[in-house]
Amino acid sequence: MKRHVEEEINLLKEMLLRMGGLAEEMIHLSMKGFIDRTDAFAQQVFDREDQVNTLQIDVDQTCSKILALYQPEASDLRTIIAAMKINSELERVADQAVNITQTCTYHLFKETPVKSLMEIPRMAQIAQEMVKESLDAFSKRDVDLAQDVLKKDEEEDTLKSKALNEVISMIRRHPSETKQLIDLILISRNLEKIGDHATNIAEDVIYMVQGKDIRHSQPPESSTILPSIK
Amino acid sequence: MKRHVEEEINLLKEMLLRMGGLAEEMIHLSMKGFIDRTDAFAQQVFDREDQVNTLQIDVDQTCSKILALYQPEASDLRTIIAAMKINSELERVADQAVNITQTCTYHLFKETPVKSLMEIPRMAQIAQEMVKESLDAFSKRDVDLAQDVLKKDEEEDTLKSKALNEVISMIRRHPSETKQLIDLILISRNLEKIGDHATNIAEDVIYMVQGKDIRHSQPPESSTILPSIK
Repeated sequence: MKRHVEEEINLLKEMLLRMGGLAEEMIHLSMKGFIDRTDAFAQQVFDREDQVNTLQIDVDQTCSKILALYQPEASDLRTIIAAMKINSELERVADQAVNITQTCTYHLFKETPVKSLMEIPRMAQIAQEMVKESLDAFSKRDVDLAQDVLKKDEEEDTLKSKALNEVISMIRRHPSETKQLIDLILISRNLEKIGDHATNIAEDVIYMVQGKDIRHSQPPESSTILPSIK
Repeated sequence: MKRHVEEEINLLKEMLLRMGGLAEEMIHLSMKGFIDRTDAFAQQVFDREDQVNTLQIDVDQTCSKILALYQPEASDLRTIIAAMKINSELERVADQAVNITQTCTYHLFKETPVKSLMEIPRMAQIAQEMVKESLDAFSKRDVDLAQDVLKKDEEEDTLKSKALNEVISMIRRHPSETKQLIDLILISRNLEKIGDHATNIAEDVIYMVQGKDIRHSQPPESSTILPSIK
C-alpha cells in the first residue's frame, strides 16, 4: 500500500513539475513577445495553456484517486493537499501569461510605442524565478528555498509601484497614449499576480514539510500601513 | 463513522457560509466607503479580513482532520475537496475587498473626484450577488444556481470593459487626474476578480454534486478572440 502511495505521489510531483515548466515557458514567451513587439510567440503561449489546463484536471483526478484508494496519512496527506493547492496556483500563473500575450497582441502592438518600461522585463524575470524556485522547493522539500521565494515577492511589489508611478507621469505627458500606457500597468499587475501565486506555492511547501500553516502570520498589510484607522 | 463525517461536514459548511457572509459584508462595506467617499467603514473591512483569515486556517485544518480520521469516499470526499478550494477562493474575495478599501483610503480620497463611474457600484452589486449565490449553490448542492453564477460573470466582464473605456476617455480630458482615474480601473479589476472567484466556487459546486469537472470545457478565450494566430 505504502509503495503504491509513493508511486502515485511521484507521478503527481512529475505532473506538477511539468506544469511548472510549461508555466515558466509561458512567462518567458509572453515577455519575449512583449519586448520584441511580435505576436510570433502567441500561439506557443496558447498551446501551452491548453496543456496546463489538461494537466490541472489530471492532477486533481490523481489527488482524488490517491485520497479515495489509499487514505494517506500525516506527511503523505499533507503532500496531496499541497499538490491540490499548487495545481490551482500553477493554472493561474498560466492564465496571467495568457493575459499578457492577449494584451500585447490585441491592444498594445496596435499602437506606436511611447516608451519602454524597464520594470516590466525585470518583474517578469523575478516572477519566472519565483515560480521555478517555488517548484524546486516543492520537489526537494526545501523550506529555506521556499523562504527565499517569500522574500523575492517584496522586490516584485516595489517594482510594481515604481512601474505605476512611471506610467502615471508618462500619461500626464502623453494623454493621447493613455490606452497603451494603461496596458503596461495591467501587464505589471499580471506579473505581480504571478509572484503572488509563487508565494502561495512557497507557503504550501512549508505547510507540506513542516505541517505548519504560516499564512497570515505576518501582521496584515492594512494595519502596517494605517494603524490609526479606528 | 458515517455520522461523524456528516457532523464534520456540516461544521465545515457552517464555517464556509460564515466566511462567505463576511466576504459579502466586506464587498458591501468597501463599496459603501467608495460611494460615500469615507474611510468610516475601513476598520470594519480590516476586522472582517482577520476573521476570514482565521476561518481559512480552521477550514483547512478541519478538512485535513476529516481526511486523516475518516477517509471519506465518493460524494463526501468530493465535498471535502470542494470545501478546500472554496475556502481559498473566499479568502481571495476578502483580499480584493481589502484592496478596494486600501485604494480608496490611501489614495483615492486624497484627490478631488473628477467624475463618478457608475459601472463600479453595479459591478460590486453583481460581484456580491455572485458570491452569495455561489455559496447558496454550495449549501443547497444546487447545480442550476451554480450555472446562473457562471452566466453573471459575462455581465461583469462587459461592465469591466465599459469602465476601462470610460476611464481612458476621462484621462484624455483630465490628464492631471490620471492617478485617481487609474485607481478606478484597479477597483474595477478587483471587482472582476471577485466575480472570477465566485465563478470558480460555482465550478467547484458542480464538481462536488455531479463529480464532473467542467473547468476549461469552454473553448479558450484565446482561440475565440483570435483564431487566426498561427
